[in-house]
Amino acid sequence: MGYGVVGAGVAKLIKEKKKLLESRIGAVLNLKTIADIDTATDRGIELGDTALVNDALSILDDPSIDIIVETIGGETIAKQFIETALDRKKHVVTANKALLANHGNELVSMARTNRVDLAFEASCGGCMPIIKSLRESLVANNIKSMSGILNGTCNYILTKIAKDGSSFEDALKMAQELGYAEAEPSLDIDGFDTAHKLAILNSLAHGMHINLKDIHVEGIRHITPDDIAFAREFGYTIKLLAIGKIQGDHVEARVHPTMIPDSDPLSHVDSSMNAIAIDADATGRTMLYGHGAGMMPTASAVLSDIADIARNIISGITRRVPIMGYPEDNIISRPVLPMSELYTKYYLKFDAKDHPGVLAEISGILGARNISIKSVHQRGRKTDGHVPVVMITHTAREAWVQDALEQILGTETVTGTPVVIRIEDNC
Amino acid sequence: MGYGVVGAGVAKLIKEKKKLLESRIGAVLNLKTIADIDTATDRGIELGDTALVNDALSILDDPSIDIIVETIGGETIAKQFIETALDRKKHVVTANKALLANHGNELVSMARTNRVDLAFEASCGGCMPIIKSLRESLVANNIKSMSGILNGTCNYILTKIAKDGSSFEDALKMAQELGYAEAEPSLDIDGFDTAHKLAILNSLAHGMHINLKDIHVEGIRHITPDDIAFAREFGYTIKLLAIGKIQGDHVEARVHPTMIPDSDPLSHVDSSMNAIAIDADATGRTMLYGHGAGMMPTASAVLSDIADIARNIISGITRRVPIMGYPEDNIISRPVLPMSELYTKYYLKFDAKDHPGVLAEISGILGARNISIKSVHQRGRKTDGHVPVVMITHTAREAWVQDALEQILGTETVTGTPVVIRIEDNC
Repeated sequence: MGYGVVGAGVAKLIKEKKKLLESRIGAVLNLKTIADIDTATDRGIELGDTALVNDALSILDDPSIDIIVETIGGETIAKQFIETALDRKKHVVTANKALLANHGNELVSMARTNRVDLAFEASCGGCMPIIKSLRESLVANNIKSMSGILNGTCNYILTKIAKDGSSFEDALKMAQELGYAEAEPSLDIDGFDTAHKLAILNSLAHGMHINLKDIHVEGIRHITPDDIAFAREFGYTIKLLAIGKIQGDHVEARVHPTMIPDSDPLSHVDSSMNAIAIDADATGRTMLYGHGAGMMPTASAVLSDIADIARNIISGITRRVPIMGYPEDNIISRPVLPMSELYTKYYLKFDAKDHPGVLAEISGILGARNISIKSVHQRGRKTDGHVPVVMITHTAREAWVQDALEQILGTETVTGTPVVIRIEDNC
Repeated sequence: MGYGVVGAGVAKLIKEKKKLLESRIGAVLNLKTIADIDTATDRGIELGDTALVNDALSILDDPSIDIIVETIGGETIAKQFIETALDRKKHVVTANKALLANHGNELVSMARTNRVDLAFEASCGGCMPIIKSLRESLVANNIKSMSGILNGTCNYILTKIAKDGSSFEDALKMAQELGYAEAEPSLDIDGFDTAHKLAILNSLAHGMHINLKDIHVEGIRHITPDDIAFAREFGYTIKLLAIGKIQGDHVEARVHPTMIPDSDPLSHVDSSMNAIAIDADATGRTMLYGHGAGMMPTASAVLSDIADIARNIISGITRRVPIMGYPEDNIISRPVLPMSELYTKYYLKFDAKDHPGVLAEISGILGARNISIKSVHQRGRKTDGHVPVVMITHTAREAWVQDALEQILGTETVTGTPVVIRIEDNC
């Protein structure tokens, strides 16, 4: 269902890799019907005896179809089709992260009731086998933390700013011209797509439900070439990270631009590439890297799900691995740590008046709130009698930092909104 | 079988993660018996009702045991035990790369005859899920090439030389003191361990049998701080790579020190960490990164195999995924490309007499064999009237290069053995 870019990629692989897949799976994958409202666009794929119809019911009503692949996207019609499919005891493969992040629990529960598989390797990180790793490879591990670069658009833009000194706006325009970013780019650049993926991965990693609205989300619109240059001086790179971390009885679940040190392999993940680092108690740190989007990488992940389900069908079994990695009855409730209670290090940039008492005033306010400064840069281009004051703090509590920022903004020394970028350098 | 470091790690996970594993797998893993000739050493693990015996037959003869884990290592007694286990229709999990590289075909065939599983995720890359990725995640891909840093000892030594300017000998000594290298380090530093892993991965990736003796193997004993410094000047890092690449009807299968550009994520894989980059037709480039050895990372991989087999047992199925990724009847024979027919780029270092005609002579001999030079460095410390002449070639045929080297060695201009390091910079 859905014959857009990803749907066409899936059709292409099933058709062109027919022999390879038959050999490896031990059964023929027969692509019976493709449904899309647009049946006119030629996707350049030799469909042979596969029907291309504009009526989804010819798939949902067809008793000979075992597996449905949903590549429509969105949360309305796709949700309705998946629910109907599960209800009719068809296995479902989807790449729909928005749907899973918002309605995953309901869909998992429906799949369980109907004793069918629901698979979604392509929903997070494209062709990186992150879902399979969390569900299967790391079975004997407690996951301590995950940090992921999960949105290729944002990573392309940040890389472009870093390498060419482009402004955010120019880098976005370039990303749009290259097809990396949508005309309406908010879902990507404001961090929501990354948050959808974090919601899914958090559930899998920690055996928990998470409400999407509990995830703190910041995008990259405010990142400037200056911030990236200052970060570099301190030995850091700025990436939009999805962070999921066990913190006592809570879980940290946050998406925001993050400074990471050059020694962190994630700092070398450039352009539209994705990567995720996982710290687990037995394995230590592992990392996956690959194309997080695109026609064929995403289709490759869909095919790995189809193959898994096909192997189950051949073996006469279903739901061999619990959909969320843990049996539904063992899924726990673990609250998300409120951002105010987060402890981390901070990069702060103030637009300050160029007079001698400025640094004393700012650091006095920070110091009074137990925030100690690791290093300060106070130089660079002076504009209208203002200079950027840039500092890196030691570990501090988010609430203290927000309180200090409010106080500093109340002084006459600083104009504009300070830039706050959190730092992760414990790897 | 085998209660050394890895065996103890496996026991530790089964004991300490009992509840987690039961929850995720849906069955209790009961560690019935551990066999080792040494039953006296206390491994610090609370064994409870698990028997620790010095008699392997109490495992092999026990009809209540379903899965045998072999962590003895080596090719003699371990082979005999695994064969007996398969013969008695017990599933086998092993981390034994030497055994698999040398006798994999026989063992796979025995497992097939007896309709049991043979799993070996821990044999390559420790906790990186490389075996599962090749067998399952990349099911719809033709693998074009793999490049892996698969030996932590070598990578530690090369990193140490690069960061501290240590000599090979000092770096090796340090690795031995830290427990990264054996007292007899040849298996690691001469590249054989890496070749064992390449043999296994090549079979999985390309659906082919490979003879270990067809793999070209060079180690890292001859790498000097000078070579690493020169590499850096040209923008390269030196890593011991396992390379498995489809080349027409042949496969390249080679292990040697390799220069890779700083833009290659593998160049940032430091210390004892492992990584593997895979180029496949649908996914493009993907990479896995993690601890390639060590007690708990290796044990984690063993547990993922045990969980897979346990899930099969619960479902009443076996050999759900073909052991080598492809059904045994579909495994092809693909010859290994002779090294003389390899085309790649080269770093060449000559110890040359410090007189004006040297460069003309060397480059003349290279040019006559169609080897064109991309850049030359002729400077640095002069010793006994000799200077190092360092050059990077464009792509050339290995046979031409070897022929030119022989000719150059016959001149009066050059003393000692030239250093030849192959370059991979097509990523």
